[in-house]
Amino acid sequence: MHLTRTAQELAEYLGGSVRGDGGCLINGLAPLDAAGPDKVTFLANPRYASRVAETQAGAVLMAPNGESYGRTVIEVDNPYLAFAKLLTLFYVQPRPPRGVMPEACIGMGVALGDDVSIYPGAIICDNVTIGDRCVIYPGAVLYDGVSVGDDTIIHANAVIRERCRMGNRCIIQPGAVIGSDGFGYAPDGNGYYRIPQIGIVVLEDDVEIGANCTIDRAALEVTLIKRGTKLDNLVQIAHNCQIGEDCMIVSQVGISGSARIGNHVTLGGQVGVAGHLTIGDNVMVGAQSGVPNSLQANAVYSGSPTIPHKDWLRAMAVVPRLPELKKTLHSLEKRIAELEALQAKK
Amino acid sequence: MHLTRTAQELAEYLGGSVRGDGGCLINGLAPLDAAGPDKVTFLANPRYASRVAETQAGAVLMAPNGESYGRTVIEVDNPYLAFAKLLTLFYVQPRPPRGVMPEACIGMGVALGDDVSIYPGAIICDNVTIGDRCVIYPGAVLYDGVSVGDDTIIHANAVIRERCRMGNRCIIQPGAVIGSDGFGYAPDGNGYYRIPQIGIVVLEDDVEIGANCTIDRAALEVTLIKRGTKLDNLVQIAHNCQIGEDCMIVSQVGISGSARIGNHVTLGGQVGVAGHLTIGDNVMVGAQSGVPNSLQANAVYSGSPTIPHKDWLRAMAVVPRLPELKKTLHSLEKRIAELEALQAKK
Amino acid sequence: MHLTRTAQELAEYLGGSVRGDGGCLINGLAPLDAAGPDKVTFLANPRYASRVAETQAGAVLMAPNGESYGRTVIEVDNPYLAFAKLLTLFYVQPRPPRGVMPEACIGMGVALGDDVSIYPGAIICDNVTIGDRCVIYPGAVLYDGVSVGDDTIIHANAVIRERCRMGNRCIIQPGAVIGSDGFGYAPDGNGYYRIPQIGIVVLEDDVEIGANCTIDRAALEVTLIKRGTKLDNLVQIAHNCQIGEDCMIVSQVGISGSARIGNHVTLGGQVGVAGHLTIGDNVMVGAQSGVPNSLQANAVYSGSPTIPHKDWLRAMAVVPRLPELKKTLHSLEKRIAELEALQAKK
Repeated sequence: MHLTRTAQELAEYLGGSVRGDGGCLINGLAPLDAAGPDKVTFLANPRYASRVAETQAGAVLMAPNGESYGRTVIEVDNPYLAFAKLLTLFYVQPRPPRGVMPEACIGMGVALGDDVSIYPGAIICDNVTIGDRCVIYPGAVLYDGVSVGDDTIIHANAVIRERCRMGNRCIIQPGAVIGSDGFGYAPDGNGYYRIPQIGIVVLEDDVEIGANCTIDRAALEVTLIKRGTKLDNLVQIAHNCQIGEDCMIVSQVGISGSARIGNHVTLGGQVGVAGHLTIGDNVMVGAQSGVPNSLQANAVYSGSPTIPHKDWLRAMAVVPRLPELKKTLHSLEKRIAELEALQAKK
Repeated sequence: MHLTRTAQELAEYLGGSVRGDGGCLINGLAPLDAAGPDKVTFLANPRYASRVAETQAGAVLMAPNGESYGRTVIEVDNPYLAFAKLLTLFYVQPRPPRGVMPEACIGMGVALGDDVSIYPGAIICDNVTIGDRCVIYPGAVLYDGVSVGDDTIIHANAVIRERCRMGNRCIIQPGAVIGSDGFGYAPDGNGYYRIPQIGIVVLEDDVEIGANCTIDRAALEVTLIKRGTKLDNLVQIAHNCQIGEDCMIVSQVGISGSARIGNHVTLGGQVGVAGHLTIGDNVMVGAQSGVPNSLQANAVYSGSPTIPHKDWLRAMAVVPRLPELKKTLHSLEKRIAELEALQAKK
Repeated sequence: MHLTRTAQELAEYLGGSVRGDGGCLINGLAPLDAAGPDKVTFLANPRYASRVAETQAGAVLMAPNGESYGRTVIEVDNPYLAFAKLLTLFYVQPRPPRGVMPEACIGMGVALGDDVSIYPGAIICDNVTIGDRCVIYPGAVLYDGVSVGDDTIIHANAVIRERCRMGNRCIIQPGAVIGSDGFGYAPDGNGYYRIPQIGIVVLEDDVEIGANCTIDRAALEVTLIKRGTKLDNLVQIAHNCQIGEDCMIVSQVGISGSARIGNHVTLGGQVGVAGHLTIGDNVMVGAQSGVPNSLQANAVYSGSPTIPHKDWLRAMAVVPRLPELKKTLHSLEKRIAELEALQAKK
């Protein structure tokens, strides 16, 4: 049984307004080309504005003053955000808490909040603290002394090692590893002597960690990921890193030890960041780039090693023409030699 | 107790023919330099043809009309494929089904096919459907509503999230995650608003997924991997991607959201593919390349950003000589200035 | 209750000597700027020598004959190694063995050494051998026939597949997969025929494997990682590779099938190595490099494709200036044409 709302009710929910039939009944969302008359769709990219003419949707979320092509429109300042909020409204039902299910394994001295759900096969070791309304899925393992805030979700087979801490409303996707030992060895003349990694990982509120990510515990102190930062899948964060607030770290990025990343930084997919450097606030780094040194705030970089993004675009445009440039250069060299020879004769 | 066959029987099994002693008894396979007289070996690469002279193998799989050096030869059109088929014949025994073993955990409303093996520590949540002869190894977690076809193998600690579907004869290596939430957020002025990811992942028949791969569920509809496609380890497939049939995706590739990959596409190791683009059928992309835009079918590309592979090879040959070219250019500039000065004097 | 030692006792433990107050009491370690008078700190990098003047630490580990700024100094040849050894002394307590805990699952024919700890949710399949003092954490899965030496630690949700073997004092971080099927298929005209992967993985003594690494079993024989080699997180080792002794393989490296890596090789983060090649002893490869061919021993390489590191640095310095060089080249071309035209007139 789906939720149903009028277009007018949705506009009020979103702080927007209706042009057209405010009484139109809506029970869900769909893309422009797949939506039927009981669905709301959205136009986030003005490039696709003409597709509004053909949609069968009951209503269209769009920015103010867009061409409606006769459709019922819900005007909102940020249609993409409004779309996300309606997705949540229509499709995300709070699940009733299930408590500690049989075949979950709970250690000694564990403190569980209210209304938790601990699934079969979840392993909660000794002296773990888990906040209210948390959900711990099957096969997730929380080592001794882990602490988890309220409303946090830990998916199947994720691992949180000893004493690591996470805040409220965090989401850990399946298979992520938080608190693995940092990669630290001291050469001892023969091989490598293992440096004990006795620090922890701290995730602040609203941090989300993608599937199969790895976040190493600090050698001595804390590997820190600040409020609101999101990691895509398969990201590697080395020991003692500090990642700022509201960063977006795209899939397969690797950040080396003791790097400090500012707030609102975006790292594109497969970027590599060297250790012991600083990336300023609001920096964006293009996919596959390699960051060998600190980067100043409020700028866009690309390349390996990174340079300003515009310079990189211009340089990359020349790369395919290098063989031709080399050939031209050698022909000029020859022509100059001929001119010089003529000159010498005089 | 090993299976034993004559060279003649093997030739018939493979649709080939024997030159030499068809009665020779074979009980297994080994490499050219390690095979004894009871083993068959194979020559797939003509570069190594001379090693046939020295092998101790009882018989050699090779293409028709190769030099036998007096060995017993089983002639087949595709020796590498024949080798693979004999490996299967000699070494892959069908395992007797073990049923639902103690300490496996089976939810409500689960439908199990005939002759399944569900190992201890496997967690099958509610309303899951599993086909005949499937094997679910320890620690694998199937969330609510997952469906699995016949003869599919899910290895230890793999995770299949809510409602994802997979076909027949799929193989999921350990630790792979299928159906994690797509990386989708709408900036809301302060931070990021999470976009619910309510779609699923569908794997068609004969799809194989490497260890610790991550395949995100679609935001609204389906992340689709078509029949016969194989993923190596640690590959990332973002939400709403569509991957064609019989593709080979080598280790550590990352494919961004809503990319569409054709049939028979090969992506080399560590390739990155941007979102919302199309790669045509039969494309090959060299290792570590970065694909920023759509690629036309039936061609080979390399580089980051990608260009035709031959152009990339030629450009890369110039890169180490850039400092020398720059120096030459500056010396030419000087020589031209001198010529111009002489000219001006006249 | 912390261990306490005098500076003199620590110096003797490390084979060094004290300058200053040998009776000073130490109960732990801390960084230069955070250490109090009951802590020892260390100066590994001479760049930070002046900070010794300001530290509150009770004693400072440093190389012989450094400036003490009036602090108590413990002189040792290798301060970083000494620091690591004291970390171990002060913070790594041997944990009492816990035996086979309830809810661990032990198969038939399993041989367990003395003083093991097998946690709840660990799954040990049939005919596994585990040495003395091993620790197997929750959710780790050892398939049939695995063998593990003494003093080895296998963390949560790691998977060791059939018949793989590991030596003494190995550490497997959470989520690592050892012995997944190699990525081997023979094209059969329509699609791909799966090549059975019937070999194993062997890890020698003192090998450490990072979180969520994947190491594929050999097709026929052995994927081998030799004594003392350390893998960071998310590293991929393909089938039939052989990695030498005391190598350091940094995060997200991918090594293709049948590659042979020498001893004491360092591969930087995100490096890719092609298959069927050889890397000589003591090679270092810079981060994000791509190794397409064999590399000679005792040298440093960078780039994709790799070239000698110094050449790569020089070439990369030119890349951002390519647009300018191209422009210069075209202006020279024009100037030469003008000179030639003048010449022709005479």
